Order: sequence, then structure tokens, then C-alpha cells
Amino acid sequence: MTPLVLKFGGTSVASPERLRQAAAIVAAERARRPVAVVVSAMAGETDRLLGLARDLGGEIGEAETDVALASGEQTSAALTALALKEAGLAARSLLAWQLPIAVEGPPGGARITGVDPGPLRALIEAGVVPVVAGYQGIAEDGRLATLGRGGTDLTAAAVAAAIGGDCDIYTDVDGVYTTDPRIAPEARRVERISHDEMLELAAMGAKVLQSRSVEYAKARNVALRVRSSFLEPGASEGTTVVAAEGVAERRVVSGVAYARDQARLAVMGLPESGEGAAALFAALAEADVHVDMIVQARARAGGVNLEFSVERRDLDRALAAADALDLAGAEISHETDLAKVSVVGVGLRGRADIARTLYAVLGGEGIAVRMVATSEIKISALVEADLLEKAVRALHAAYKLEEA
Amino acid sequence: MTPLVLKFGGTSVASPERLRQAAAIVAAERARRPVAVVVSAMAGETDRLLGLARDLGGEIGEAETDVALASGEQTSAALTALALKEAGLAARSLLAWQLPIAVEGPPGGARITGVDPGPLRALIEAGVVPVVAGYQGIAEDGRLATLGRGGTDLTAAAVAAAIGGDCDIYTDVDGVYTTDPRIAPEARRVERISHDEMLELAAMGAKVLQSRSVEYAKARNVALRVRSSFLEPGASEGTTVVAAEGVAERRVVSGVAYARDQARLAVMGLPESGEGAAALFAALAEADVHVDMIVQARARAGGVNLEFSVERRDLDRALAAADALDLAGAEISHETDLAKVSVVGVGLRGRADIARTLYAVLGGEGIAVRMVATSEIKISALVEADLLEKAVRALHAAYKLEEA
Repeated sequence: MTPLVLKFGGTSVASPERLRQAAAIVAAERARRPVAVVVSAMAGETDRLLGLARDLGGEIGEAETDVALASGEQTSAALTALALKEAGLAARSLLAWQLPIAVEGPPGGARITGVDPGPLRALIEAGVVPVVAGYQGIAEDGRLATLGRGGTDLTAAAVAAAIGGDCDIYTDVDGVYTTDPRIAPEARRVERISHDEMLELAAMGAKVLQSRSVEYAKARNVALRVRSSFLEPGASEGTTVVAAEGVAERRVVSGVAYARDQARLAVMGLPESGEGAAALFAALAEADVHVDMIVQARARAGGVNLEFSVERRDLDRALAAADALDLAGAEISHETDLAKVSVVGVGLRGRADIARTLYAVLGGEGIAVRMVATSEIKISALVEADLLEKAVRALHAAYKLEEA
Repeated sequence: MTPLVLKFGGTSVASPERLRQAAAIVAAERARRPVAVVVSAMAGETDRLLGLARDLGGEIGEAETDVALASGEQTSAALTALALKEAGLAARSLLAWQLPIAVEGPPGGARITGVDPGPLRALIEAGVVPVVAGYQGIAEDGRLATLGRGGTDLTAAAVAAAIGGDCDIYTDVDGVYTTDPRIAPEARRVERISHDEMLELAAMGAKVLQSRSVEYAKARNVALRVRSSFLEPGASEGTTVVAAEGVAERRVVSGVAYARDQARLAVMGLPESGEGAAALFAALAEADVHVDMIVQARARAGGVNLEFSVERRDLDRALAAADALDLAGAEISHETDLAKVSVVGVGLRGRADIARTLYAVLGGEGIAVRMVATSEIKISALVEADLLEKAVRALHAAYKLEEA
């Protein structure tokens, strides 16, 4: 029978009570099929440890910071094993060096290169539930290295791939919603979503699933599901991440996502050669500014106008980087108090009327669109921050997302 | 040059400020000789982790409890390495599985069977300060196992033995005192003390050094020193633990120790065969009662009278165990509100007048002696709890311990 990997995030292992609830979920699944468990550090623990390390000069990327951080998952793996034993299951914690989980790449952002399935299979065959400490692995130099924030999702996907299992990600929400229920109370849980839609939503800040884990699961053909550990076992099926063909026939749009605190920069009158744009983006990357939407148009007066969006907190660094360049008389301006609204769906592929619908819906509500960018399965618009919630509700209603 | 192992206890690594102070001490020693560091968990961390484990049924002795507890030293080893780097030293944390430190025996009370000096020597030769996570090792089954409370002292002694080094134990007191300065303000720091005296004092609850580490250091010929991490580097030499011949010539008595909350049990009229006493002590051991002083005398009416002392908290269990036995009509009585005062010194060996001096001093103060027991280098008396401090001061003065 296909084994199941259950991953519990920080809020799902935050206290003995939460650990008991997690153990009840594992026990319910264990009655049906072989299981393995992967856990994050208890909620708040990684921040506490990082604060201590930083106080001593240990930034992310420093090997000793990783050693400190990795202890959080060691603790929760042991406590989870205890909770499982209390629930009547045989269980055993497995640390990265005991499997091992091999990684490479920098401390604080390592990549998993291999998970030895041997110890996992041996325990499962012996009727013991393995409880793997997430978020970490052993690098080539024999040292601990962590995978970066959300890395435990990646550990879970890698463990599932290693033992040929499915992967349920338990968190504090019961799946992916058509939009944020705090903005649109009629929002519904999405039952099935494609990997690419999930990636777009994850990139938009929907924190239910870390994007690297989605990519990993897609590449290794692992069936992922997002479920709530705050509900009784089996109370909700959550959201299943499936190949695109499994959802495309159902509906055009899967959800409406958003991001607050955006800013827009405009650089008017760059030379047409493209050298100015190249220098600009190089300087922004150097300044660690993440550029999101980019629009380029020919200026009436000749040359090129470039507009792009960044997160508000990156704006000052972006402006400083642009000002430091010699942009041959180009004019730089910027605008804040913006937000981004995005419509995501594999059904958007190849549909020419999407932009028209977006403009029509937002225009009908009197919401000006300040910038638009599209991808294969997403169309995003920058709007005034004050009008964001109105825009989300209007698009959610226009695509009838409240209907099952 | 003989390397030095510096061990820092929980209060010495309790915060970034304390860690910086520890790093300054390491840097000062490092300027003179090669060093390695061994650390405990941050003060309070082991109790916090044990509380979480216990809440889930993970008592001491349970393998997963050990995995949770061991994470505390992993964190502090990483933070100590960061503090050393901040102080300008090259440093690297070493976890039990990275050395490895091999142990055997039960979780929560494992024994060190081997420390591989290779990685320690390689780091030291490369100019890097190794920072070893204390209190833990890897058992035969490849799992983490902890050494029991105070186990980091043992790790430090074992690391020192492995690399042929001396061992400084840094804690929140600057050595062993002739008695508790809170009782006798004239108490002085002892500069040199023998292993056996240290063992007697450790057994009496002087928490400066864990007794297994003293035994280990004695057996492996490691020079131990107790020093304060709360003083500036080099401000005090602490107390050096040396072979008995190194202290015997100096003075008869090294210190006056005490223990509060003692109780006395008397079992009168046991059969002379010894079977009753054997059954009694077996029952007490079964009930996990630690019997301290034992006095046996022939009863006037025939048979044997047995008196012994236990800690007050063990009294109810001791009485229940004794009552459950069929002791052939022996009478059981008990007394509480007692305390133990002990005079410790290698100079006591073979001196016939010790008991006489003890009785004379205490008698001169009007302090009744309720029970006396002697060992090679210690004589202990049970006195009324109210009179304990008076007894400590009188004995401290009688042996002129305030004089250097």
C-alpha cells in the first residue's frame, strides 16, 4: 500500500495539546496505511533561536546559526515521537545524520540531494512510525545545514519521494481558498489545484505551502495535499495538489490572490539600446531588490519607458540603486500605497479575453488599473491600496468562485 | 603545550552577555595554550525541555526524552562558537555524532566509553577552537543518550582525558569554600583539594562539581579546576583538584559541609541473624530510598538496634517500606527536623581524636549529636535543624578554617 508522509508545521506541534492532536491524526491514518511523519520546530522556536544567534553575530548563512536552528526540529521530533507513543503507536525520532538526509549548498539555504530510504523502510516494516526532523540535512563537510524558511515542507516532499509515498502537509488552515475569507467571506476551499497554480499562490504569499516543495513534488511526482491539523481527523480533505490535467476541465480560475504594500517605479526615457535597462536591473539585483511586475513601452519622445513593481520595504533601496546609475537623463519617479490583485488558474492558458475581463470587472467598480502583468496561468493588476479588498471581492464574484 | 579544556555550565552560557564573558575567558586562555570548550545547555533549558517531554509521558530513561534534552547543548554549542567568532577566534561546534562520543548504558544515565580525539586534535592544530556539546553521546544503537544531570562535567573530563589536557570547570562560584559563606561569612576559598575530598563535598550537595566527573578525572589523571565565569579572566584561580599527597601536608580539615532536611529512623530489636536488616535495606532500595548514615548497635534486651538517616522527602516511603515488612516485633520510630554537618579532609585519615574533637566542639556549644558516622576522610553528625548553622560556625572556627 502506498505509504503516507504527514508533515506538521510549527503551529501543529506548538504545545503538548497540539502534539496530541497531531498524534490522533497520525493514528487515524496509520489504521489505513503505512505512515512516516516530518515535523517543523515548535511555533516561535526558530525565531527565538535565530534571535539568540543574531545577537552573537550569527546571521543566516553562518554555519553555527544552522546548528542552533536545527536543534528546534530535533526537539519537536522527539516530542512528536513521545506523543505518538502516548497514543499507542510505536514511534522513533530520526535526525538528519541518522538517516542520513544529504544536502548541498550554503548554510541557511541548502538543497536536498538525497534521502536514504533504508532506515525509513526498516522502521515502517517493523511497525514503527519514523518521525523525521525537518528543515535540515548533512552537508558534504559533515555539518548540519538548514534548508531555509519553510524547508520542512521540502523535507516532507523528499521523504515521500524516497519511500514512494503521498504527502499530506498539515498546517493551521484546511487548504487553499479561492481567496482570503477575511476579505471575501464567501471564499471556498479549493479541492484540487495544479502544481503551477499552487506555485503562483505560494509566490503571492499564500503561506500554506513552500514553493520549493511544490516544485520538488511536481518534479518527483509526489501527490501533495494541504490539510488542517486543527480539525478532527478526517473532518476535511483539504486541498490536493495534482497535475494540471486533473483540474483544467473544471473551471477557468482557481482563486484570487493578493499582496499588500507594493510600490511602482517608473524610469522614463531610457536609451533604446537596452543597455540602460540592463544596468538598472543589475543594480537592483545587487541591492537585493526583488522586482516583480515589469512593463516596458516605447516612449513617444523616443527611447524606452520602463515601469516595475517592488515591495514597499524594498523601495528605498531600489531608488538609491537607480539614482546611483548614470541613466543618461532618464526620469525616475515612483508611487506607493499600491496593492496587487491576481487571478490564478490553469484555465487561463491561451484565453485572449482574460485581460479584457479583468479591465471590465475592475473598471465597472471604478478601480483604476495602474499596471498589468500576465503569466501563463495568472494575470496581476496593481491597484490603489484602498481599493484592494473591493477588487478582490469583485473578481471573486465575477468568476463565480463562491459556487462549488 | 598541555591543552586546556574549559567547561561552561548553564549559568555561564545563560544569555548572549554571559556567552560573551565566557568567550573572553576562552580568548585569554587561548593566548597561552591550545584550548577546547565543552558547554551545558543554557540555564533553565534542560528543565523546560524535560517539562515538555514529561507532559507527553517522556520520563527520564525514555530514549526520546534524551533526544529532546540533547538539543539544549546543541544550541549552546552553536551559540558559544558564534560568541568565540565574535571575539575574534576561529571556532566550530562539535556534536556528539560528529566526534563521536561513544556511550553505553541506559538513556538518561549513560556512561562515556570513548571520545575520538582525532577531530579535536585536527581542529586545534588548524587553530580552530572546538566547542563540544556536553551531556550526551551516541549509544551502540546509533541513538543519542544523555549522561544524567551534571553530565557535562563528565564530558569535559572525558574530552580532557582524550586530548591529554587539563580541565577547568567554569560555574557561578569561584571554587570550593571551607563552608557556606552564607552561614559563616569568614569562609575562605580552598585553593587545593583532593579528589576524595571533592567527592565527599559533591556527595553532600556542594553543586560545584559532579561526582562522576571527579571519579573520572581521578581515574584518568586529569587535573581539574573549579573557576568562576562571573569574574574577569584570571581574577581568581578557583579551586584545583589534586592528588591527595598534594594537599595532605597543609591542613587536617578542608571544609565543613552540611545538608538540611534530614530524618532519622530507628528499628529496635531486630533478630541478631542479620536477616531482618537485609530485608529492611532491600525494601528501602526497592522503594528508591537513599540511606545515608547507618549505625548498628547491640540491643540491651538482645537482638540488634539499627538507626539510619534519610532525606526528609524519602521518609514517608521509608516508613511505608519498613511497615510492610514482617520484622518480628521490632519497633520502628522516627525523628524529623534534623540536619547533617560534616567535617571533610584528607588529613582526617587515621586520626583517632577526630570524633573526640567533634563531640567536644559541638558539646561545648550545647549541641546534641543524634548520630555520628565516619568515612576515611569525613566525619558527619546529625544535629537538630535549628542548631545547624551554629554547629557549622563552631566547627569552622575550631579548625581555624578562616586562616589562609
